[in-house]
Amino acid sequence: MTTSSPSANRVRVAVVGASGYTGAELVRLLVEHSAADIVAMTADRKAGQDFGAVFPHLAGAARAHALPPLQPVDAVDWQAVDVAFFGLPHGAAQPLAASMPSHVRMIDLSPDFRFTDPAVYAEWYGQPHAAPQMQEQAVYGLTEWSRDRIRNARLVGCPGCYPTASLLPLLPVVEGGLIEADDIVIDAKSGVSGAGRAAKEASLFTEVAEGVHAYGVASHRHAPEIEEQVSSVAGRPVLLNFTPHLMPMNRGIFASIYVRLKGGASADDLRARLAARYADEPFVRVLEPGVLPATRHVRGSNHNLIAVFADRVPGRAILLSVIDNLVKGASGQAIQNMNVACQLPETTGLTQQPLFP
Amino acid sequence: MTTSSPSANRVRVAVVGASGYTGAELVRLLVEHSAADIVAMTADRKAGQDFGAVFPHLAGAARAHALPPLQPVDAVDWQAVDVAFFGLPHGAAQPLAASMPSHVRMIDLSPDFRFTDPAVYAEWYGQPHAAPQMQEQAVYGLTEWSRDRIRNARLVGCPGCYPTASLLPLLPVVEGGLIEADDIVIDAKSGVSGAGRAAKEASLFTEVAEGVHAYGVASHRHAPEIEEQVSSVAGRPVLLNFTPHLMPMNRGIFASIYVRLKGGASADDLRARLAARYADEPFVRVLEPGVLPATRHVRGSNHNLIAVFADRVPGRAILLSVIDNLVKGASGQAIQNMNVACQLPETTGLTQQPLFP
Amino acid sequence: MTTSSPSANRVRVAVVGASGYTGAELVRLLVEHSAADIVAMTADRKAGQDFGAVFPHLAGAARAHALPPLQPVDAVDWQAVDVAFFGLPHGAAQPLAASMPSHVRMIDLSPDFRFTDPAVYAEWYGQPHAAPQMQEQAVYGLTEWSRDRIRNARLVGCPGCYPTASLLPLLPVVEGGLIEADDIVIDAKSGVSGAGRAAKEASLFTEVAEGVHAYGVASHRHAPEIEEQVSSVAGRPVLLNFTPHLMPMNRGIFASIYVRLKGGASADDLRARLAARYADEPFVRVLEPGVLPATRHVRGSNHNLIAVFADRVPGRAILLSVIDNLVKGASGQAIQNMNVACQLPETTGLTQQPLFP
Amino acid sequence: MTTSSPSANRVRVAVVGASGYTGAELVRLLVEHSAADIVAMTADRKAGQDFGAVFPHLAGAARAHALPPLQPVDAVDWQAVDVAFFGLPHGAAQPLAASMPSHVRMIDLSPDFRFTDPAVYAEWYGQPHAAPQMQEQAVYGLTEWSRDRIRNARLVGCPGCYPTASLLPLLPVVEGGLIEADDIVIDAKSGVSGAGRAAKEASLFTEVAEGVHAYGVASHRHAPEIEEQVSSVAGRPVLLNFTPHLMPMNRGIFASIYVRLKGGASADDLRARLAARYADEPFVRVLEPGVLPATRHVRGSNHNLIAVFADRVPGRAILLSVIDNLVKGASGQAIQNMNVACQLPETTGLTQQPLFP
Repeated sequence: MTTSSPSANRVRVAVVGASGYTGAELVRLLVEHSAADIVAMTADRKAGQDFGAVFPHLAGAARAHALPPLQPVDAVDWQAVDVAFFGLPHGAAQPLAASMPSHVRMIDLSPDFRFTDPAVYAEWYGQPHAAPQMQEQAVYGLTEWSRDRIRNARLVGCPGCYPTASLLPLLPVVEGGLIEADDIVIDAKSGVSGAGRAAKEASLFTEVAEGVHAYGVASHRHAPEIEEQVSSVAGRPVLLNFTPHLMPMNRGIFASIYVRLKGGASADDLRARLAARYADEPFVRVLEPGVLPATRHVRGSNHNLIAVFADRVPGRAILLSVIDNLVKGASGQAIQNMNVACQLPETTGLTQQPLFP
Repeated sequence: MTTSSPSANRVRVAVVGASGYTGAELVRLLVEHSAADIVAMTADRKAGQDFGAVFPHLAGAARAHALPPLQPVDAVDWQAVDVAFFGLPHGAAQPLAASMPSHVRMIDLSPDFRFTDPAVYAEWYGQPHAAPQMQEQAVYGLTEWSRDRIRNARLVGCPGCYPTASLLPLLPVVEGGLIEADDIVIDAKSGVSGAGRAAKEASLFTEVAEGVHAYGVASHRHAPEIEEQVSSVAGRPVLLNFTPHLMPMNRGIFASIYVRLKGGASADDLRARLAARYADEPFVRVLEPGVLPATRHVRGSNHNLIAVFADRVPGRAILLSVIDNLVKGASGQAIQNMNVACQLPETTGLTQQPLFP
Repeated sequence: MTTSSPSANRVRVAVVGASGYTGAELVRLLVEHSAADIVAMTADRKAGQDFGAVFPHLAGAARAHALPPLQPVDAVDWQAVDVAFFGLPHGAAQPLAASMPSHVRMIDLSPDFRFTDPAVYAEWYGQPHAAPQMQEQAVYGLTEWSRDRIRNARLVGCPGCYPTASLLPLLPVVEGGLIEADDIVIDAKSGVSGAGRAAKEASLFTEVAEGVHAYGVASHRHAPEIEEQVSSVAGRPVLLNFTPHLMPMNRGIFASIYVRLKGGASADDLRARLAARYADEPFVRVLEPGVLPATRHVRGSNHNLIAVFADRVPGRAILLSVIDNLVKGASGQAIQNMNVACQLPETTGLTQQPLFP
Repeated sequence: MTTSSPSANRVRVAVVGASGYTGAELVRLLVEHSAADIVAMTADRKAGQDFGAVFPHLAGAARAHALPPLQPVDAVDWQAVDVAFFGLPHGAAQPLAASMPSHVRMIDLSPDFRFTDPAVYAEWYGQPHAAPQMQEQAVYGLTEWSRDRIRNARLVGCPGCYPTASLLPLLPVVEGGLIEADDIVIDAKSGVSGAGRAAKEASLFTEVAEGVHAYGVASHRHAPEIEEQVSSVAGRPVLLNFTPHLMPMNRGIFASIYVRLKGGASADDLRARLAARYADEPFVRVLEPGVLPATRHVRGSNHNLIAVFADRVPGRAILLSVIDNLVKGASGQAIQNMNVACQLPETTGLTQQPLFP
């Protein structure tokens, strides 16, 4: 038995939406977190089911750590909760956030609070934003870029998985004026867990294994999210190409980003800028020249690896970026944000090494 | 027993390099070919071994069709051969081609005769071309683009797998002046069989499964091959970005090609041009607007599917192209070329439907 | 266009349930069949959809062969149909068979007509048999064991995939009295396509990839099916162990069968018996001593490979058997049965070699 | 920087053979171990290479924890080492163990010290045992069965991966006389990482993906290892069937064990015995009736899950057992043994939850 009693010094956590993959990943990481305790877990259709039956890989943890049962969200005693993670489908976190007691910090993994402009949300998600006043308080939770604001935030809207993989390499070089912000092509490759646990024909093993394909071409909802952040550092509205592809693997995002250099910058300049920007970051590593990243090098970890290559076309460069979509792209970054928000060491609970092979 | 005796009307075929994957694929297709007979098969290290032991999936075919044994290449009786396929590592086909009796037509699957300019070969393959006089006679075997020249060719240099997937969508729109030839980004994703059957650490299951990565960034040998062909239709030297990625799957290439439109052209114009260009082609199909290709839709077949999408960045478009790297990207196209060269119906032996799931 | 007009000499085929994987596989094989034409295809929920959209890998075939649309089953003109394949969920073929005009031969791929004893069906499928009078006419379609009866059959109940893989090696050695029928352990491993195309959480890529598990332990519906056939050749009721396992692959069944030898028989005796029994069979091959089968050696083909090994425990032996569950385990065997029933050469349309890698 | 200085209270560890998968897995786990420090790492061919280049997934750890370089084994300063792990090919650990200074505890992951009887080693590994005097001191490191002896052991011979998965369920029920020791069939399924990182054709992605096969039938070296241990608790020599199969996945072993019940025992009796035997074990969990284990439920963890099912054949039962072959089947169990030998809490460094999906 390794259960620890919640105490004043520990963070009491609710995992709202614990029956999805991001919820399970939060639980996997939080049970080993040295300063947090899961005090509530919720589910919708699966409320009342045994968590160890819903996620058998965590059945042992559920017993050893005496995890709470899966309840409906309205059964949670919020007075006993310090931090709430929302692992919900889009639209669901907005009313919930609006109704949350003021002492509860919220870390939202859904797209509900990612857009500064609620109109963009409404346009891309097909429904008006239900809590625009909350949106005003929300901080976009790309930790390495909003750490200071997260420290006091009541509500963090965690980035999507593709935006995380794309923005970490892009923001410094756009900010530094090293590339043309209007000539960015992001060709991204993702594992299937990004599609969640919903039973859809398109996510069947037989429909995915032994093949690759693009989807959401020129129409994926992560495009405007990336654009809003790039625009913010560029200082003007930017449109870019973002084309996601589905890979026959569980986890991982590989973003290949094709850029045009600006003002005489070279690929080495880009690498130097990135290396300097992230020199003190525990989870971001800029690779030496010639070293190639792979998604399997970050599997199961909160790491991001970035490489820069000169293109053979003069004046162009290639940025390569990898993350585990469920960790740095979702639950790991969410915990990183919780650590920041709760003034804990930022790497707490996130020091696992990647699992390979 | 379905063995057929070679006769004056049938094509007598030698598969040189039958112990590699492209060799095996030639055998798989040729045993069902209604107008060709395999009369010789060669191997290097595996000469003398039972073909059914080298490729157990073809052991039944070896028996049913009384396939010849794996011999060293110098044991072949070339007088009994009409067509020789070369499934060899680079460098090996050049001396062989130079020494071949004049009645033998040669279909080379290696890179040895793909470059009009032997100096480009020398630069990228690290050794001088050993048969430049043969190179002059060689036809680049992208069937849909050199059918007329293949008809009388003694030597066909079949395109690489990536070039096949890239050139089929690109050539018509460059030729038509619909895109900027100097602003082409090809992000290509390939299955592992493209790496051949050599026992290399990088091709181990454990090193490939559950992950993706880029390789040969800005330095892959298929880049100059694609460039030479694009330059040819552009009418001037073109450099382009070509970035290959390795996928955890056996077969298939997915090429995502990002282009800048020219002279007011739209994505619809590109699609119309492609559809017109390939309307009568049996193996190339241009998809309706909005339909997405996938490598699994062509697995095991000689098909190429092409889709065109408008980018959300004004003035840009996206071409998507899929093939099976071992069929249309290698052995299938080689047989297609043999059919053309031998005045057989072009689809003979190539009508199998894709295998899915 | 390779469409052929139906004629008196050709078999006019209806594929009932063409939107499932076995239906697609029937279409894949039948479009290349030299003596059959698909004249009707039906679907339930997907009736009215474009077949090329439902199965994009066959979109080219649908156009080239002018395949009929997906209609509801009651829209079929049975007067224009000679043979109907039923690729339906259990229970659905029974009323359909009962209502079918007498000139239509029926090849059922569902479990509806596999059991001689309707009570066994009722017990294992949880509902009374709806057409016991049809069951009396039905022939169990393990082609190699009931060829003579299939020749005149109006209704063939094709074996399940696991029973096909298990019975081909078992029946000859039980019949020959070489093994103890009461001491048989069948450990079977299957690809995911055996679960069909239904959108179920358990069949998601993420739930299947990178792992294996047993299911239906001691309770799978294929156990009584295997037992009924083994009992039939043993001449008395037999119970046996059958344990299926799900593999992270699309296609293939590997059956490892552990048996106790009887009356002084050896593993060599088993192999000899099997080799003699199947010497003239086009699709069954008994491997030489020491040669190991693999599912990838039969992928996409109608082949069955069988190997026999002596166990290191005296008096025991091991039978290994592989098939492609969608071909010999379903649609290929169904076409093999159609060929027999229609007095066509048995291998017509089934000569494709396996696809590897 | 999270490097900790070695101190008198911490265990100073050498990883001999750090360039293989079990070596990498030792490093992955040991860098997070709260009471051990890696002070030396050795390699053979890869000595001198950067560890982060050999295993890029650990490049970050190598820097953060200031891991030592890969040196040849004879360059290690053994005076600075408390515990040596041997992750070596068979044969290599014997001379090394014989030459090791007496203060160094040795945890051998190779087969060199697994057999009580050196003659069995000699017979199965094709060479005489080179250090039989060391073998006498060696303890077979199936932790749950030899904890007391490991506590004082200088040399622990860790079990093979298949034996670990097989013995944990088998030993209690054989010891309890609940099953016939002479009628055991072990059908085992393993991921590819069990074959190590050697570049072999048989381990290529293309040779393994999308297929399964048996290997080493009735001749695998883990058979005598399992037999020796089962014989030991049975009190007499036992032979058993052990048939390994290769699965298209990286990690995991699934052992399906078919047994005959003895003396009126039932499957429930087996489960009760196992549950009682392992009630206090932190890494072994006996599942509730009807619950099915899967290798993905233990991926990356040191867990073993065991399930028991009644067979439908009277008097028989089925044991199902899963582990991660690289963790509980190799490096995790090795660290568990180190913890025991060094009087550390047994779960130190081994509390990671499984990674799913």
